[in-house]
Amino acid sequence: MDDLPVRDELRGKSPYGAPQLDVPVRLNTNENPYPLPEPLVERIAERVREAARDLNRYPDRDAVELRTRLAEYLTRTGGHEVTLTNVWAANGSNEVIQQLLQTFGGPGRTAIGFEPSYSMHALIARGTGTGWISGPRRDDFTIDTEAAVAAVAEHAPDVVFITTPNNPTGNAVSADTVVSLYDAAQAAKPSVVVVDEAYVEFSHGESLLPLLAGRPHLVVSRTMSKAFGAAGLRLGYLAAHPAVVDAVQLVRLPYHLSAVTQATALAALEHTDTLLGYVERLKAERDRLVGELRALGYEVTESDANFVQFGRFADAHGTWRKILDRGVLVRDNGVPGWLRVTAGTPAENDAFLDAVRALKKEQDA
Amino acid sequence: MDDLPVRDELRGKSPYGAPQLDVPVRLNTNENPYPLPEPLVERIAERVREAARDLNRYPDRDAVELRTRLAEYLTRTGGHEVTLTNVWAANGSNEVIQQLLQTFGGPGRTAIGFEPSYSMHALIARGTGTGWISGPRRDDFTIDTEAAVAAVAEHAPDVVFITTPNNPTGNAVSADTVVSLYDAAQAAKPSVVVVDEAYVEFSHGESLLPLLAGRPHLVVSRTMSKAFGAAGLRLGYLAAHPAVVDAVQLVRLPYHLSAVTQATALAALEHTDTLLGYVERLKAERDRLVGELRALGYEVTESDANFVQFGRFADAHGTWRKILDRGVLVRDNGVPGWLRVTAGTPAENDAFLDAVRALKKEQDA
Repeated sequence: MDDLPVRDELRGKSPYGAPQLDVPVRLNTNENPYPLPEPLVERIAERVREAARDLNRYPDRDAVELRTRLAEYLTRTGGHEVTLTNVWAANGSNEVIQQLLQTFGGPGRTAIGFEPSYSMHALIARGTGTGWISGPRRDDFTIDTEAAVAAVAEHAPDVVFITTPNNPTGNAVSADTVVSLYDAAQAAKPSVVVVDEAYVEFSHGESLLPLLAGRPHLVVSRTMSKAFGAAGLRLGYLAAHPAVVDAVQLVRLPYHLSAVTQATALAALEHTDTLLGYVERLKAERDRLVGELRALGYEVTESDANFVQFGRFADAHGTWRKILDRGVLVRDNGVPGWLRVTAGTPAENDAFLDAVRALKKEQDA
Repeated sequence: MDDLPVRDELRGKSPYGAPQLDVPVRLNTNENPYPLPEPLVERIAERVREAARDLNRYPDRDAVELRTRLAEYLTRTGGHEVTLTNVWAANGSNEVIQQLLQTFGGPGRTAIGFEPSYSMHALIARGTGTGWISGPRRDDFTIDTEAAVAAVAEHAPDVVFITTPNNPTGNAVSADTVVSLYDAAQAAKPSVVVVDEAYVEFSHGESLLPLLAGRPHLVVSRTMSKAFGAAGLRLGYLAAHPAVVDAVQLVRLPYHLSAVTQATALAALEHTDTLLGYVERLKAERDRLVGELRALGYEVTESDANFVQFGRFADAHGTWRKILDRGVLVRDNGVPGWLRVTAGTPAENDAFLDAVRALKKEQDA
């Protein structure tokens, strides 16, 4: 590859992605452990069969039915009314973010995130030629509003990312902090603030969707990968002022969202209540993980997501390997001293807890 | 939208896309008019049902099975052996092209195409911050090799696009011309040459895939939208040296290709022979369109695609409208004096020919 004329900033880099290892218990990529219920599987087959009969035609370029149903879901669960005109969808929230950065970031512009946070924000910034600014977080992984506002005022970024609940740390950001950052960003220059709510359905608190009222430069991004148990579907979406939805259409690839993706997502949305039932189970399991890990003497970051960050380890990667040796794959996100475990089924979580319990014993021996 | 901080180069622009009008005969977007055969529809439902049972998990990030099957298809039909390591797939050839430009183009770099050609090349260049150079074509829409080589030598672009068969004009580019352009491009600077073969299955001639031998900077891009009758699927792919495949993975969004897309594409590839049978019918219909339009006195560009460019019109857009008034939607690509019609079913083509015949009469009266 060294002989190829790839862009300088890509040289020596590796593709993003957790190791896809064949391990009995995979708790490394924040997947939902519950397979879709069989009636939904059948409904997907049915809707895709119908879509396949028209597959020789391009899909609905504007995904009107899907965006309408997503808007209804947000209105019903997010505490704020949105409609088709407020919603945009793409192949995973990564593509949503890429489209936002192509529209509002790009060469000569910058984006900020408060790290450690979802590392794809920085990577997609690089992929779109957007300068990346690493904003501050406290040692306990909460955002120090004053310090974050100061960073925004100093750098005057074009795009601000706020991930809440935050990945990989798990903790949520308050509405007050988001409002302060929005105001600071707008005071510095007209800019776009993206609240990444990929994990919000697992939160103890509420969605920040109501903050959209009166804030035309605010964007809330979401995904069906986690709460809807559909990581394989690759369906991300955003809610924002209709002008933002219009603007991203200037960079979206035409017909970016396939007919089978639209059909599958629509089927899943018909089964929202069942799927949100699994979310409740996972929240309980997440809380159990937090409790048991603390009881074992680990430090655990507050979690509003479907995963838990725990530590501290002198050698986090060595610990990751030891847990893997016991058949459980967790995630080493490169946060020094910490690892992340996804809330799985009760049996998977038991397997994980057994592994770390054994580790503790080994250590204490 | 004027109040939003969108990038300057996007201001005042409109999203790309043909009007999606509800008209009896739609011959405007080069779709395959033949719906997938019912056994394939059932196979898609079956494979998607299977994929849906694992939809809570992320898809195979590397799409190994799909790329293997695509490589087999290319090897069998393209006159050149390729394997998994030579093939990459994405959501439509547009995403393939976007990934190539993010890797080898981008800010401070340029790409050239010989226009009129597929307008998304220039638009994706804009979307990725790549400078765009409009290379020359003769009045009869063939490429003047000497003039094209001179343009490449003068501008020393980082990426060269050659669309063959060319869209919207329909004519193919010879292997000799591609080789000359490849050599000229490499002489100017290390650069990547993309041969866009979206329509190659409809060609009277052969694929240029064999040119990959000994040309590590050559890329052949393909799509399942046309010959496979699967525009709604959004599956594009490329063949190239394995290093190119490795390189685009530095910018691809992780898990960009959904499990349902992979399952549907795999089902379609099982039915390749049936689908290529439709291609033969469409080639015959395309040749009939060329013959009949010429018999009517129209100028027609040589076509190796599933569409035909015809003219000339003092007012191409007015003619487009008049054909639409007769229930047939063709495409005005903005090539002055010319329109483009997709080869449809025999009945659709008859309807189109009736419309232009009536127009001729009106004109002659």
